[in-house]
Amino acid sequence: MDQGISDRFGLAVLDPLDGQASSRSERRDQQVQRVLEAAKACFIRSGFKGASMQEICAEAEMSPGALYRYFPSKEAIVEAICEADRRDDASCFIGMLDNPSVVDGVVYAALHHIRHTHECNKTALFAEIRSESMRNPAIDLTCSRNISEVGKRFHQYLSAAVERGEIDPPVGFETLLPTIMAIGEGMALNDLPGRGVDMDQLEILLRAMVVGMLRPRTADVATNTD
Amino acid sequence: MDQGISDRFGLAVLDPLDGQASSRSERRDQQVQRVLEAAKACFIRSGFKGASMQEICAEAEMSPGALYRYFPSKEAIVEAICEADRRDDASCFIGMLDNPSVVDGVVYAALHHIRHTHECNKTALFAEIRSESMRNPAIDLTCSRNISEVGKRFHQYLSAAVERGEIDPPVGFETLLPTIMAIGEGMALNDLPGRGVDMDQLEILLRAMVVGMLRPRTADVATNTD
Repeated sequence: MDQGISDRFGLAVLDPLDGQASSRSERRDQQVQRVLEAAKACFIRSGFKGASMQEICAEAEMSPGALYRYFPSKEAIVEAICEADRRDDASCFIGMLDNPSVVDGVVYAALHHIRHTHECNKTALFAEIRSESMRNPAIDLTCSRNISEVGKRFHQYLSAAVERGEIDPPVGFETLLPTIMAIGEGMALNDLPGRGVDMDQLEILLRAMVVGMLRPRTADVATNTD
Repeated sequence: MDQGISDRFGLAVLDPLDGQASSRSERRDQQVQRVLEAAKACFIRSGFKGASMQEICAEAEMSPGALYRYFPSKEAIVEAICEADRRDDASCFIGMLDNPSVVDGVVYAALHHIRHTHECNKTALFAEIRSESMRNPAIDLTCSRNISEVGKRFHQYLSAAVERGEIDPPVGFETLLPTIMAIGEGMALNDLPGRGVDMDQLEILLRAMVVGMLRPRTADVATNTD
């Protein structure tokens, strides 16, 4: 195959020696993606416990040998799904930091999480993984790692704002952080956009709520209990 | 058996004719309760899909014939579990109405729900039923009925407060109600007391949040955007 043509048409480069490696890695990524999509469908349909590796193979149209080459267990598949979520979270945090105030940033992060969960149709998968984490130590570890990473980012972001006097939350971080994260999870899990909640109205309500919880000291907010 | 003795020792009254009926109904209640407790343990351990009626029979130490006499399916068991929850909710709402202000009432209901879920060790069961509701129309119907009943009570409570000018939420009920309920679910599901969150601190934070969302007009609150 002519490399020029394959490049122009966005095809995988198979012939040249350096192209072989890139093609192998691309094919591997595609296969992994195929397993992840198949597993998500099976977990949603049958539950984590109910879905067998056989069912995932059938859904992915892949032999057990091929599937086990990528993932030794369902737990390893969930880890890869959560790893992808961590990358989404990281891009959400970059967006959060771009906001002019910490209230705007927290509202942005909440709306982003709610919208992303809705648009990627993740509600049912998310509920299933969460529920499985309560009986499965391996899944619990994966979930805890994600939660603790999100908690660390929020902690850095909010404590910097407290230090520079931008906000004055009425309670310490040991109460504030788990509560904010529990609220975010509840809103995503309930798929508010899917239930017809208008996102502009939700933004107004979230801002009022976040202002209440963080007590910003800047002039553009109406709430200050001092 | 002498009725006086059985009464004194709190035993079921078996002998007299009127006692037979009460004893039968008591025994039925006990058997139903035994199935419900066994089913909860199985759903938490194996998931709704993973738990079989056989597993529930074994856990309840009951024959399949006896179990099917009370419940024709796992869905019917979940309905009975949720029915008991509806009774808990109703008692929570009675407590809510006793509060001096609507902000106090909503904070009371949230704390009650979080504490009750924690104390009755319901987090994992709750997560499992919620997750199953996303693929099982019968369970979804049961959950939706519970959610809509809670929504109706909150709607009555909050709209009366709006009408008498006690609160002035920044958005309509079509946004406010599902958001409040999603927040309550997220906090209960995360078992905040189980994760070491102090309930007195949580109450302070919830009050600040609820004040932000409901905008009470009374003198004892610090937040008013008008």
